[in-house]
Amino acid sequence: MSSLDMIEAAARRLQGHARRTPLLGSPFLDDIAGRRVLVKPECLQHTGSFKFRGGWSALSALDPATRARGVIAFSSGNHAQGVTLAAKLHGVPAVIVMPSDAPRIKVENTRAYGAEVVLYDRASGDRDAIGAQLAAERGLTLIKPYDEPQVIAGQGTCGLEIAEQTAELGIDQAEVLIPCGGGGLTAGVALALETKAPGLRVRPVEPEGFDDVARSLQSGRIERNPRLSGSLCDAIITPSPGELTFPIMQRLCGPGLVVSEEDALRAMALAFTRLKIVIEPGGAVALAAALFHPASTAGDTVIAVASGGNADSGLFRQALETHA
Amino acid sequence: MSSLDMIEAAARRLQGHARRTPLLGSPFLDDIAGRRVLVKPECLQHTGSFKFRGGWSALSALDPATRARGVIAFSSGNHAQGVTLAAKLHGVPAVIVMPSDAPRIKVENTRAYGAEVVLYDRASGDRDAIGAQLAAERGLTLIKPYDEPQVIAGQGTCGLEIAEQTAELGIDQAEVLIPCGGGGLTAGVALALETKAPGLRVRPVEPEGFDDVARSLQSGRIERNPRLSGSLCDAIITPSPGELTFPIMQRLCGPGLVVSEEDALRAMALAFTRLKIVIEPGGAVALAAALFHPASTAGDTVIAVASGGNADSGLFRQALETHA
Repeated sequence: MSSLDMIEAAARRLQGHARRTPLLGSPFLDDIAGRRVLVKPECLQHTGSFKFRGGWSALSALDPATRARGVIAFSSGNHAQGVTLAAKLHGVPAVIVMPSDAPRIKVENTRAYGAEVVLYDRASGDRDAIGAQLAAERGLTLIKPYDEPQVIAGQGTCGLEIAEQTAELGIDQAEVLIPCGGGGLTAGVALALETKAPGLRVRPVEPEGFDDVARSLQSGRIERNPRLSGSLCDAIITPSPGELTFPIMQRLCGPGLVVSEEDALRAMALAFTRLKIVIEPGGAVALAAALFHPASTAGDTVIAVASGGNADSGLFRQALETHA
Repeated sequence: MSSLDMIEAAARRLQGHARRTPLLGSPFLDDIAGRRVLVKPECLQHTGSFKFRGGWSALSALDPATRARGVIAFSSGNHAQGVTLAAKLHGVPAVIVMPSDAPRIKVENTRAYGAEVVLYDRASGDRDAIGAQLAAERGLTLIKPYDEPQVIAGQGTCGLEIAEQTAELGIDQAEVLIPCGGGGLTAGVALALETKAPGLRVRPVEPEGFDDVARSLQSGRIERNPRLSGSLCDAIITPSPGELTFPIMQRLCGPGLVVSEEDALRAMALAFTRLKIVIEPGGAVALAAALFHPASTAGDTVIAVASGGNADSGLFRQALETHA
C-alpha cells in the first residue's frame, strides 16, 4: 500500500513544516566504531522525535472536512506529541487517549501542545471502546502510530533526506540502523531508500528482551514480545511488528540487531559528549549498535538514526554520571 | 578589512566541510519569551562550536605552500579544537599552545583532534615568546581567535545561513542575540546581515562581570574586563573586544545584553528539555537573554545563537538537577 510515490507526496506536504535534520558525526565516534558513523538526529525534529513527520503526513492527507472534525490517537509518548502538534498547526482538535498512570510530564506536555487528554484506567477501562465512542460521537479520525500508510509515508521522508544527504557526501554503500518499535520509521525509510539509494540497507535495532522485529524477520512471521513494560527504551516497545510494516521490512531490511540498555545509556552519554544532542534510551539503540557491535554490521560507513530525544532528566543525569 | 565579499568567499570554501546548522524552536520557549524564539545551534558544528568555521576559513585562505608548513594557535578551548580539526582535514600540522594548568580533558581532546599541544607555565613562561619561537623555527602561521579578517569572515558564514533561513520563514525583522567574547562571531554575523537581511539587528550578549563589549559599545571606546577567570562562561571570556571586531560591532550592533550565570544554566536546562541540544554556559547566554530578559529586546521574533556545546558533564548534570 505504501510506496515511494506516497513518500514523495508526503515530503511535499511536509516541506516548510517538518525540519530537515542534518547528518552529524565525530572522529571520536568513528574511532570507537572502526568505521565512519553518521547520525541522523530526529531528536531535533519538532516535538523531539520523528513522529511529527508521520503525524503531519496523516493530518495533511485528510480531506479538509474530515480533518476539521479532529483526530484521535492512543499514545502516552512521542506519537501523541507528534499528532497533537500537527493537529494544532492545522488548526484542528486532537484527542489523545492515555492510561491514567502515564507519567505526569507526558500528560502535561501533550496537553501543552494543545491536545484534549482523555485518561482511562488500565485495569477497568477499555481503551479501544473509549476511543471508538469518542470518534463516533465527534467524527474524529483515528491516527494509528505505525500501521497506517500515510504515517509510514511521513516517516519515509526521513529516508529521502538520508538518500540526498549521503549522495552529497558521495556515500553509496552503507547500513542504516534504525530504532524499531512497530516499524513505521523502519519500513518508511527502507521504502524510500529502495529506489533512491539502493546501496543503503536498513537494519532495525531493538533492546534486549523486546526483540519482536528481529525474531519476526528471522522466523518469517509476526512474533510477539513476551512483555511490554520494564524497559528504559519505552519509546520503541510495541507488542509486535505491524501488519503493514512487517512485509515491507521482510522484503527490504537486513537482520535485526539487539543491544542492551547499558549500551543505550553509553550511546546517550557519547551523543552528549561528541555530538551535543540529547537522545532518549529508545532513540539511542541504533547508535549503540553502531558503536558497540561493529562486528554485526558491514562496510565503511554506518548511519544511525537517533529517533527521539524525550529523555527524562533524571535518567539522563544518570547516564552522564555513569558513562560520560 | 572584512567584507561581505570575504564572507561569501569563505562560504564557498566551507561548502561541504562546515555543517549548515538548522534553526530550531519550540512553542514552550515561545511561551516563556512571549515571542517567537529561533535558535541557531552552532553546538552542532564540527568540534562543538562555531569556531570550526573561522578555523577552516583561515586555513583554506592560506596559500598552499604556507599552509603546508602548518599553523599555530593560543587557546585552551573551542578555537583550539576548531583550528586543529581544520588543519587535520587539510592534512597540515597544528600546534596549540596552552597553559599547563588547562583542564586535562581539553588538552586530551585537542590532541585527539590531531594537534601537537605545547604546554607552558603561566607563572614563569611567556606564551607569546614561546609561540613566536615555534612559528619562526617551523614557519607556522598564527591563527588568531577573532582579530583576523579570514576568521571573522568564516564566522560570518553563520550569518549568511541565518539570512537564508529567516527569508525561507518569511521573517524580515528580528533581533539576533549572539554570545560575545572577542567579537569574531558577532562582527561576522553583523556584516553578513547588514546586506543580506538588513531588518535583522545583532545584539552581543555577555555574562555579568565580563561585559567588556556592552560597556565598550556604550562608551564608544574599547573597555577591558577587570578579571578574566572565575566565570562558568569561560568560552566567551576575553580581555576586551578586538581591534578589528569592535569598529564593526560599533557600526552595526545594538546595545549589549548581560545575563547572570544562573540564567545561562536555566537556558541550558531548557535547551535540553525543549530543543534536545547540549549548550555550554557561554554558549547559552544569548538564549538566556531571549528567554529571561524579554523586555530588553523588541519585535515578534528573536534569534539566539547557541555558540558552543562543549559543556563539562558534571556541570551539565548540575544544571539539569537544579533547573530541569
